[in-house]
Amino acid sequence: MKSAGGRLLTGLELDRAADRPLHQQLHEQLKGQILGGALPSGTRLPSTRTLVSELGVSRITIVTAFEQLTAEGFLRSRAGDGTYVDSLWSDRAPARPLPRPPLSERGAATSARGTSLFTDAPHSWAPSETESFVASQVAASAFPAAAWKRLLGRHAGRTDQSLIGYGDPHGLRALREAISEYVNDVRGLDCTPDQVVVTSGAQQAFNVLSVLLLDAGDTVLVEDPGHISGRLAFQSQGCPLHGVPVDDDGAVPPAVDDGARLACLTPARQHPLGVAMSPVRRAEWIAWAQRNGGWIVEDDCDSELRYRGKHLPTLFGLDPSRHVIMVGSFSKVLSPSIRLGYCILPEDLVEPFATASSVIGRPPAVLFQAAMADFLAEGQMHAHLRRSRKLYAARQEALLEALGQQLPYRLHAAPVDSGLHVMGWLHGAEDDVEVARGLAARGVYTYPLGEYRVTRRLPSALLIGFAGTAAEHMPQAVGRMAAAWDAWERSSARR
Amino acid sequence: MKSAGGRLLTGLELDRAADRPLHQQLHEQLKGQILGGALPSGTRLPSTRTLVSELGVSRITIVTAFEQLTAEGFLRSRAGDGTYVDSLWSDRAPARPLPRPPLSERGAATSARGTSLFTDAPHSWAPSETESFVASQVAASAFPAAAWKRLLGRHAGRTDQSLIGYGDPHGLRALREAISEYVNDVRGLDCTPDQVVVTSGAQQAFNVLSVLLLDAGDTVLVEDPGHISGRLAFQSQGCPLHGVPVDDDGAVPPAVDDGARLACLTPARQHPLGVAMSPVRRAEWIAWAQRNGGWIVEDDCDSELRYRGKHLPTLFGLDPSRHVIMVGSFSKVLSPSIRLGYCILPEDLVEPFATASSVIGRPPAVLFQAAMADFLAEGQMHAHLRRSRKLYAARQEALLEALGQQLPYRLHAAPVDSGLHVMGWLHGAEDDVEVARGLAARGVYTYPLGEYRVTRRLPSALLIGFAGTAAEHMPQAVGRMAAAWDAWERSSARR
Repeated sequence: MKSAGGRLLTGLELDRAADRPLHQQLHEQLKGQILGGALPSGTRLPSTRTLVSELGVSRITIVTAFEQLTAEGFLRSRAGDGTYVDSLWSDRAPARPLPRPPLSERGAATSARGTSLFTDAPHSWAPSETESFVASQVAASAFPAAAWKRLLGRHAGRTDQSLIGYGDPHGLRALREAISEYVNDVRGLDCTPDQVVVTSGAQQAFNVLSVLLLDAGDTVLVEDPGHISGRLAFQSQGCPLHGVPVDDDGAVPPAVDDGARLACLTPARQHPLGVAMSPVRRAEWIAWAQRNGGWIVEDDCDSELRYRGKHLPTLFGLDPSRHVIMVGSFSKVLSPSIRLGYCILPEDLVEPFATASSVIGRPPAVLFQAAMADFLAEGQMHAHLRRSRKLYAARQEALLEALGQQLPYRLHAAPVDSGLHVMGWLHGAEDDVEVARGLAARGVYTYPLGEYRVTRRLPSALLIGFAGTAAEHMPQAVGRMAAAWDAWERSSARR
Repeated sequence: MKSAGGRLLTGLELDRAADRPLHQQLHEQLKGQILGGALPSGTRLPSTRTLVSELGVSRITIVTAFEQLTAEGFLRSRAGDGTYVDSLWSDRAPARPLPRPPLSERGAATSARGTSLFTDAPHSWAPSETESFVASQVAASAFPAAAWKRLLGRHAGRTDQSLIGYGDPHGLRALREAISEYVNDVRGLDCTPDQVVVTSGAQQAFNVLSVLLLDAGDTVLVEDPGHISGRLAFQSQGCPLHGVPVDDDGAVPPAVDDGARLACLTPARQHPLGVAMSPVRRAEWIAWAQRNGGWIVEDDCDSELRYRGKHLPTLFGLDPSRHVIMVGSFSKVLSPSIRLGYCILPEDLVEPFATASSVIGRPPAVLFQAAMADFLAEGQMHAHLRRSRKLYAARQEALLEALGQQLPYRLHAAPVDSGLHVMGWLHGAEDDVEVARGLAARGVYTYPLGEYRVTRRLPSALLIGFAGTAAEHMPQAVGRMAAAWDAWERSSARR
């Protein structure tokens, strides 16, 4: 037979100055000890007399508390044998508890890859500035830290409700105005500030659009190979994906209607292959949407980082029937850490999108919205883009030169007109996922094309990012890639 | 018959220095003009001879481009009658375009309320600091703007990859450590930094948990009346809701297993009614999870803003079987505009959650994470909480006094131990949603209890927030509420 002994008495703290009567305090605390396991089922409590003397309270206080606890099932009295802790838990807990439920199907699929090769973790935040081949990595040194800090400082001291509260679900008005001018300048896209909704990056936009436009089971057309993040967003919403192949003109629309409700496309720069969608294809996709009553989500990723040639008109701008929603992001052109992107929407979708967006993720941090509005309105973004294009063009050139000199026997890479990575097509028959894993295990991070496939068989290739490595470090960085590759090859030959 | 005339010629810009052959440039640009509508279907192009002289290119350049455009369906030659723009669009576009698809079922449900009474828009960001009864509104003047600005300034100039990149999907390590200490201090919750994942507020956490744990069609138990935002998150994921009633001991677990897979609960302070869940109920809910193999999401909202009494232990801390996930947020205790919250998870759920979270919304703005880590670690949060509790307690007192003096014939409100609003129970039989609308139309914003119901019939009440109105302004503010109510009553009596 267990006894509560000293532990019970030391654990209790009754406060005579509190509003709550002492018997209630005693009741609550004993209950807490029982629930917390400090007084296990079967423990015999000290006698009322002992408690009166130890706690310095009246007998009625103790009796009242004990009676309540007994009534609630926490205590049990045995005639002539004192008071015992009854089992609140074992009365209620099942004899054989069921195991926890598993993850949902889509949850398991969404989280299956873990923090693996496919996305930002762990390598895009771990590597140093001087050396990374991660395709999504921007140059930290190119970030206009001083200007950004100054703009943040301008608004950080404000305590007006517009900056301290949740913020307008559509985004800060000044930022919506600045974005509508920005997309006109850099993308030739004609829209009003009312058609802009600010999001926490493109990823949030994909998720909101999934909820808004798709029910579970609705099929989504995605490019194959295609943008992993966008695809995961739709998949995490329980929507089956159909891959459409990509050729030199971009994604190929399905010849017959397959019942898909939405197509997610990257016409400006196919991700990851890098081709710009041809004008004919653009017309064909818009016809697809009109013929089948489908939505098009135009993922405009990387479009501003163009080194050569001009942009073709956006699908959004080409489509008079308003089947297209454009998604843009400042992650690549400025920094992913500020979590700002935007959607350009047909007028009648603006309110539903803003409402769904505020349900799903709330408006993004208002301070950053205010700073970004100024950054755009004061022309700093244009200056930053000019600098970035020059910097990245030089880094691309250095990468291609180093690859050509040091790895010509492994892969072939051609220059790209825009974006942050080149495709390194492997000469050998190795599985690119295996190669990327082998390199990653040796500290050299790339993305394998295989991770971007939906169902289509693709040649082996690595996405090799050039933005994260300074031009002058490129030869050594590629040298380390070559060495890691050799080491991986030796170790896999041994197995 | 239309003629392209001068517009065609001025619109073309051929670059002899470009890599691309001139005929390709001409081809692309003509295609672009046709697709863009600058050259409508039926337009007659100038003759080859004219173009040779106007553009200063060879005949073969023009013929090659025209041939390609003709092959692609953009142009059409009529023997002896020159070259015309063919209709790329009308060939592809369906004769009778289908209308755009409607919103998804869940999208329509999610966005149905528009920017209405129920959430942050428009009134929580619009009203002035001196006067608001919106329950979710914090005091902008209480925001520690100077300290926060200083902390932002400390990190804003940094350009290391950890601050410029996407950020660790789990959240900044320093912040995870600070949060694990914080929840121990303020909530008595024992967890390691490894069990903490930083989110963009509670709302993102609900959404990630929906995807991770629920497939479409899985039933979710929610409190009735209950937290609107959490409920909307599950609903937006296509999950049917079952309401469980709330009494003075908190939410009542279902007597028999109804197949629900997850229960979303607010034990610390039932939202919106304000009761703390009793220990017995806590045990019963944990037993529910163990018996049915269900998840519990413990929404710890408002728990730190406690004016009286102590916290009961969290469900997370009470449950050894790890069925519970706790969701916390800094929106109410600091500001919703910084978009920071957290999940405390059983160890084996940490990686799946972090991965799903980075798919669904990416890690929150890293700069704010760095500042928040310092804010917590340097003890500023504790100082801020002390000040806030004092400020809000005074505001609550002022509100109750003013309501008692000016609106005793309309409603009865009792003091609350924690949170940012009191319940104003209406004496009359008016529909509270109608009352709230009537007041809102006159510039006085409250939330009606009716908006929080799932299916249960509830007495009429308004949630009246006290945090957004200075104590000295309370009498006038309540006076304006009384006047608005009178005016609404008169106008509805006339109808």
